[in-house]
Amino acid sequence: MHAFAVDGLPEIDAGDDLAALVAERADLTDGDVVCVASTVVSKAEGRTAALAEFTPGPRAEEIAARLADVTGEQKDPRFAQAVIEEATEVIMDAPFLLTETTCGHVGVNAGIDRSNTGGAELLLLPKRPAESAARIQAGLAADVGVVVTDTSGRPFRHGQRGVALGWAGLPAARDWRGETDRDGHELAVTVEAVVDELAATANLVSGEGDDGTPVVVVREFEFGDHDGSEQLFRAVDGDFVRQALRGWTFDGA
Amino acid sequence: MHAFAVDGLPEIDAGDDLAALVAERADLTDGDVVCVASTVVSKAEGRTAALAEFTPGPRAEEIAARLADVTGEQKDPRFAQAVIEEATEVIMDAPFLLTETTCGHVGVNAGIDRSNTGGAELLLLPKRPAESAARIQAGLAADVGVVVTDTSGRPFRHGQRGVALGWAGLPAARDWRGETDRDGHELAVTVEAVVDELAATANLVSGEGDDGTPVVVVREFEFGDHDGSEQLFRAVDGDFVRQALRGWTFDGA
Repeated sequence: MHAFAVDGLPEIDAGDDLAALVAERADLTDGDVVCVASTVVSKAEGRTAALAEFTPGPRAEEIAARLADVTGEQKDPRFAQAVIEEATEVIMDAPFLLTETTCGHVGVNAGIDRSNTGGAELLLLPKRPAESAARIQAGLAADVGVVVTDTSGRPFRHGQRGVALGWAGLPAARDWRGETDRDGHELAVTVEAVVDELAATANLVSGEGDDGTPVVVVREFEFGDHDGSEQLFRAVDGDFVRQALRGWTFDGA
Repeated sequence: MHAFAVDGLPEIDAGDDLAALVAERADLTDGDVVCVASTVVSKAEGRTAALAEFTPGPRAEEIAARLADVTGEQKDPRFAQAVIEEATEVIMDAPFLLTETTCGHVGVNAGIDRSNTGGAELLLLPKRPAESAARIQAGLAADVGVVVTDTSGRPFRHGQRGVALGWAGLPAARDWRGETDRDGHELAVTVEAVVDELAATANLVSGEGDDGTPVVVVREFEFGDHDGSEQLFRAVDGDFVRQALRGWTFDGA
């Protein structure tokens, strides 16, 4: 398996045809997986905003006051309002805003980016990342998979890692259920979230800073002869961590 | 960046020299990262056990009874005892056992494996995965990094993905703090857990079943000119999810 960055992409603006820009710069082959950072997808889709577009309601004022209280840093209630409007659930409001976004992804601040915005104040996540992935896939001549990626923190472990927000042309996961090991025992690993692992691979290659390359091609990834699963995001019902967080309040310690 | 499996490894037994077995089968180059599944590290280190070795105490009996209650499935209290003995904290005891293990990793059942055991009843995690990684690294002639990997579930998202348990010869994370994007803004991503992303990459290549290949070499990964961080596992103090889970009880729904 190989992973290489697509070099020479210009700064992306609203209306740009990402698929065409990638196709001009990468000689894609059937079976490639094209991993595209959500930042450039958002820019191409015009998902930028100014803080002034958001009028804070009482919940946003309350959140901003509480965050200022807890972190000692002045928070802009318009930013809290933007997060509320972009989120389908605010799971936790202090010491940071943990949210579910429309696609099902759980992350901080509804994924709103204040760096890497290309001049705008706020860069919002793509509204429907699976549709974004399908659109990019349709614009590429080769029979490829597309993963729209993000970089996100997680419980239990420090740091961030690449994750998938949307995908097209391949299943989200390899389903090993019912398969056996060398000794004939059922496997402990049952469902492997390959789109997240592809996003992680892309992140190793892409970088983030001045020389960041937002599109990475993974070549010769073999899905193998397994069932596929399309499920990536847990519903609250099966997500004990979300249930626990709903009942938890940061005590300022 | 390339990733390829080391083919032809035999079934691993206690006392086997993993580094030698890998060196015989892979032409390693300076800068390679050798990702080794914890299952074979455990086997080489003789970390197998029989259920009969564990005498359930009252807590194990209680956990087994509660799990049987909640899941409707008969649980062996000796297995619960094994998990308790291997764990540094039982964070959650139903509907499954979520634990912290000695290295700091949070996962189900203290990482004890009941498939892939090579005939034994239980395969325990390596006791000190960072030392395991350093030992393997020392046994390889080339100047390589080594990551001992596991496959683990996570909150918010279905499925499992590769994670690092221990590493040697490279930092756990790239630290981008203070670095800027094309427009001169501070980056949103600050610490990237590269050892986890390398473990995810290895998982895409390795497979799990009859034809699983537990050692994967990642070649031409460039850490780049960034600060490194050795921190991967959160302490409870900074881990709000663990704090929330400590105060939460599964209600059987």
